[in-house]
Amino acid sequence: MLYTAERKRGRRVISRLMVLAGLACLGAPSPSLAQDAARLAQARTPLKLDGVGSFYVGGRPVAQSPTEIGLYAGGSVIIDQMYVQYMLPAGPKKTPIVLVHGGVLSGKTYETTPDGRMGWYEYFTRKQHPTYVVDQVGRGRSGFDQAPYNRVRAREAPPASQGNIRRVATDIALVRFRVGSADGRPFPETQFPVEAAGELAKQTIPDLSDGSPSEELNVRALALLSQQLEGAVLVSHSQSGRFPLEAALRTPRTIRAVVSVEPPGCNATVYSDAQIAQLSRVPILIVFGDYLDAPQTMGIKWNEAYRDCMAFVARVRAANGNATLLHTPELGMRGNSHMLMQDRNNLQIADLILEWLDGHLPPAGR
Amino acid sequence: MLYTAERKRGRRVISRLMVLAGLACLGAPSPSLAQDAARLAQARTPLKLDGVGSFYVGGRPVAQSPTEIGLYAGGSVIIDQMYVQYMLPAGPKKTPIVLVHGGVLSGKTYETTPDGRMGWYEYFTRKQHPTYVVDQVGRGRSGFDQAPYNRVRAREAPPASQGNIRRVATDIALVRFRVGSADGRPFPETQFPVEAAGELAKQTIPDLSDGSPSEELNVRALALLSQQLEGAVLVSHSQSGRFPLEAALRTPRTIRAVVSVEPPGCNATVYSDAQIAQLSRVPILIVFGDYLDAPQTMGIKWNEAYRDCMAFVARVRAANGNATLLHTPELGMRGNSHMLMQDRNNLQIADLILEWLDGHLPPAGR
Repeated sequence: MLYTAERKRGRRVISRLMVLAGLACLGAPSPSLAQDAARLAQARTPLKLDGVGSFYVGGRPVAQSPTEIGLYAGGSVIIDQMYVQYMLPAGPKKTPIVLVHGGVLSGKTYETTPDGRMGWYEYFTRKQHPTYVVDQVGRGRSGFDQAPYNRVRAREAPPASQGNIRRVATDIALVRFRVGSADGRPFPETQFPVEAAGELAKQTIPDLSDGSPSEELNVRALALLSQQLEGAVLVSHSQSGRFPLEAALRTPRTIRAVVSVEPPGCNATVYSDAQIAQLSRVPILIVFGDYLDAPQTMGIKWNEAYRDCMAFVARVRAANGNATLLHTPELGMRGNSHMLMQDRNNLQIADLILEWLDGHLPPAGR
Repeated sequence: MLYTAERKRGRRVISRLMVLAGLACLGAPSPSLAQDAARLAQARTPLKLDGVGSFYVGGRPVAQSPTEIGLYAGGSVIIDQMYVQYMLPAGPKKTPIVLVHGGVLSGKTYETTPDGRMGWYEYFTRKQHPTYVVDQVGRGRSGFDQAPYNRVRAREAPPASQGNIRRVATDIALVRFRVGSADGRPFPETQFPVEAAGELAKQTIPDLSDGSPSEELNVRALALLSQQLEGAVLVSHSQSGRFPLEAALRTPRTIRAVVSVEPPGCNATVYSDAQIAQLSRVPILIVFGDYLDAPQTMGIKWNEAYRDCMAFVARVRAANGNATLLHTPELGMRGNSHMLMQDRNNLQIADLILEWLDGHLPPAGR
């Protein structure tokens, strides 16, 4: 662990101990809801960067009316662009890693954890990988096409013509993310920092990927980004699980490896043999946490998602491909949730992925 | 200048020269629209950080119906939280700086510039200020309350009950941001990197601050953030101009200074004498660029905004306050646009601000 939460005198920002309190109810806001800046852990050794910043990938200009634009006259705006933030480590560089977040979340997923620890964005950078975090098209700093909403507001289009905007209720998220059981109690061995459940709830933001073309736009943008980077590992989480695989079907040479963290399934029966043959040229790692059999009252069943990915891995292997399925409890790690990148052992999970990458990417990396 | 755009062999990401082309038409997309990752400049010396990451400030739980949430069952979600990203420099630390973006933009404003140079986020960090960039409530990773839109979609509420969502057409932005004249030509001396106008257009994302309470929510969140940081300089841009001043009316002791970059006015006749007396306890710097008299066909007139700020400064000074108005052409700098933090001389402008801060903040800073 590079991080410590110990008190540092003389520093304004990181000056108070984290207030920890085991909450019986998962959905209760953190008792330190108003003290976030004070709860951030701090690195023992400085992070040294050759570059830090952001850019957009993709996007296309469209003409919109004054009503659609909602401010001044009409004209051309750019839509469908993907926001990409990055850190480039100082010193030798390994293969770039692109981190893609899941549903109702943003790139924030991979930054500081809800309880103030280091996220994968910084950790992979510290491990000498240039690391890129995106916001899915339709969310966060990538924005969305506001025109359908403004048309409805102006009664120029029927209400059903604007897309459904998704969030997830805090209690349901914590059950679906397998932090706790349906009766609202955390699993005794959960690795998720339950005292910071309120902070995870803040990370869920409106998601416009339902019934819109934004999923397809994300696949395209990730393929384009991997080309611009001249090779990258694409890491997905949850809802974004299929994006790297489908990007790899388009630009197999620039996607060096695919890591799917807790996908909602692997489309084992969807891909054609030709597609599986293409995917067999890309090293693929799939990672699932614990409690896959925990009862779910609606939507995805995680044990079914896991079995679908087992079938997918079998098909890729039958095509002489390189696919691995990791189930953390089978490695002796108990209690991992759907939010593996935020769990207490998140850096241990990151190390699993990094070790796998080291064994499956060209040794020089770049 | 710490940055160079020269070719670096052996690096994948930053491997091609920027493609520069003087475009006659402001709104034309950049010719290198698909090469963003290749156009990023690189620091000569590594950036050393004690911390990097993000957190949310504020937010409150509200109960929403399944229709309002748009995914699974209803329940509690958190709304009105503000996303805050940060970099803490290694070594001695000066007063924290919080950077707030303007209308139709996000925190991206202060990261890498449209043409791939260093933004103020990194530059202020390199100058030993812990630096915080927010997304306004209602935008970017801060998200927005999706419930009114989903209610309208389900015909549970009339179309007019959902807020107008604002963007700005590219051509109009470039005229209003004083990059060029109303006939679509860049000003001959413009400091804005016109060849990257398409990249600026990508940064404009849907803005829900019109007709919603989000402006007030931003004032509250910034006041709370300055308290959490135990003192901060609040820097606004354009639309956010009044946020730091109004935050200072609420938490005058934790707002160490206010810097307003190109506000749309200073409410000179709006504040009461008692409010001006309160604001006279906070050092205030206001910065405007060039071409304030350039014709505008709609909305704010920049010369009127400037005169209003002159009147505001006069009132603060009459109350024995410390207020300064900088007009860059009067300092011998020609051609600055509304996007001073992205202009070619953006670091020179940053130095002006830093020098002023050094002269107006307690010497130890922290």
